[in-house]
Amino acid sequence: MTSDNVPAPGATEILAAAGRIAPYINHTPVFTSTRLNRLLGGEIYFKCENFQKVGAFKARGAMNAILSLSPEDLACGVATHSSGNHAQALSWAASLKKTKAYIVMPSNSSKVKAEAVKGYRGIITYCEPTLEARESTLADVRARTGAVEVHPYNNLNIIAGQATATLELLEEIKDIDIIMAPVGGGGLLSGTALAVHHFHPHAIVIAAEPAQADDAYQSFKQKAFVPSIHPDTIADGLRTSLGSLTFPIILNHVSEIVTVSEAGIVRAMRYLWERLKIMAEPSSAVPLAAIMEGKLNVTGKRIGIIISGGNADIDHLPWTSHA
Amino acid sequence: MTSDNVPAPGATEILAAAGRIAPYINHTPVFTSTRLNRLLGGEIYFKCENFQKVGAFKARGAMNAILSLSPEDLACGVATHSSGNHAQALSWAASLKKTKAYIVMPSNSSKVKAEAVKGYRGIITYCEPTLEARESTLADVRARTGAVEVHPYNNLNIIAGQATATLELLEEIKDIDIIMAPVGGGGLLSGTALAVHHFHPHAIVIAAEPAQADDAYQSFKQKAFVPSIHPDTIADGLRTSLGSLTFPIILNHVSEIVTVSEAGIVRAMRYLWERLKIMAEPSSAVPLAAIMEGKLNVTGKRIGIIISGGNADIDHLPWTSHA
Repeated sequence: MTSDNVPAPGATEILAAAGRIAPYINHTPVFTSTRLNRLLGGEIYFKCENFQKVGAFKARGAMNAILSLSPEDLACGVATHSSGNHAQALSWAASLKKTKAYIVMPSNSSKVKAEAVKGYRGIITYCEPTLEARESTLADVRARTGAVEVHPYNNLNIIAGQATATLELLEEIKDIDIIMAPVGGGGLLSGTALAVHHFHPHAIVIAAEPAQADDAYQSFKQKAFVPSIHPDTIADGLRTSLGSLTFPIILNHVSEIVTVSEAGIVRAMRYLWERLKIMAEPSSAVPLAAIMEGKLNVTGKRIGIIISGGNADIDHLPWTSHA
Repeated sequence: MTSDNVPAPGATEILAAAGRIAPYINHTPVFTSTRLNRLLGGEIYFKCENFQKVGAFKARGAMNAILSLSPEDLACGVATHSSGNHAQALSWAASLKKTKAYIVMPSNSSKVKAEAVKGYRGIITYCEPTLEARESTLADVRARTGAVEVHPYNNLNIIAGQATATLELLEEIKDIDIIMAPVGGGGLLSGTALAVHHFHPHAIVIAAEPAQADDAYQSFKQKAFVPSIHPDTIADGLRTSLGSLTFPIILNHVSEIVTVSEAGIVRAMRYLWERLKIMAEPSSAVPLAAIMEGKLNVTGKRIGIIISGGNADIDHLPWTSHA
């Protein structure tokens, strides 16, 4: 479980996770665009986790975490605080395993995400939109129910589950030079980096982050944890801080973190919708935005990008003005 | 080429079309939704032609038509009148075969579709939005350029090309009971019906049409051609009348045409976007709308639906109010 004394899922754990979750998740397709490749001068392979169960890669980690718990641990249910896709994913996975998911959600969460959680039979407790309120409310819920916490990203089973998206991509597309993922709490990024490290070490991993929520970029540059204080980005999945487990893995196995503008995120998201017909949520568009903004050289390269999810609020699209 | 004295592509022509266009088109994925299937009580298989080249099945027919022309016929280019996906598809196919596509387009066509045609190097001539103006302008353009007309649907090579979507679906998904397609001019529907007739005759074909553009429904019921006079539907691909070639094929090989409300189309489109993350244009949502409105019994059935295209105008979505 360790590499350079950092706790991290090894090749065995990632392969075990892949086998464990296979009956429940979608093997998502990889899309390409001739036009985009011509425009950018490289070959981009989009691993479309927007077509994953619950519309995001989070189904992988949540299902792996739930399947890794003992029947005793599962008996009283699972709990988490999440405003987004992890909440849906945990509710979905818990429901499939006939247990309860208690979701602590900030009161300003988007309606579509709350409805989706309810659709998967998650039991929502709303709280103030601060980290303190989320954590104290979660502690209350756990004390009341006996539920086991499944953190959205700072959990080795979650990280191993997220790694399986890249594992599938590497099995399908050979000779990839660069794998890109967005970074928020770092669950997807650390899993991606570990999958590359274990199964295709010739590639490098480059993360992309909104400049207006650049705590991972700052942490990476300073090699010291910088929290996400006032994230102000449309990419709502990327507003969280790195975790004590994800940050060291990222430091060890990620080559670079680049940042992108909000306008660049919207432009890339629009391109994915309009041209590739991929319903990508804003967070998913961040790696493509980095390429479109020239933050890395892709000429002649084969680049895999994890399209992390498709849970955009279609009533409030960023390119549509609302009166 | 005939069946019951109706000119129609046979099995040989459809297989030849599939082979001919294979190097150019996408083999599109088939999507399912556990949740939707549970909701509807049947198994729905969506053949996602929104992920086809140019974002619609029309790429198949256009490419087959172009590849079926002689070098002499191709020399002066091809021409058509189309407000939509056929215009893009013909421009795309012509550009790949290094010839010109002259597109006559009504002046009220959506900006996004006109831009897409230009993106594929189609040469647009605008005209008044009447059938007369479209036909006379097309005649002018052809007289001036010597281009060969490639009709959007009333053309046997187009029909054979459109049939290949169903051919792929039938190869991938076994034991389908019902295949559904939307109907406008009938190119997709007649191709779909022929593919089923030749390759999986145990299935039946049911078409779906907006009630506010129900000329195919009326024609089918009366067994006599009824033109589309004042179509008033959001499903902009389905406003045209049946053709002299498509109508007899439909009469011979389609079991039923059902109609759906505008609200039903928007609801089904929204479901496809929000739940399946399939960017379907309004026309594509019409068959699912028919199922959701209870227009056919799908209990215990396996139903294939051709998602015809994904070229929605993302600046003007039907569920978003604009001030």
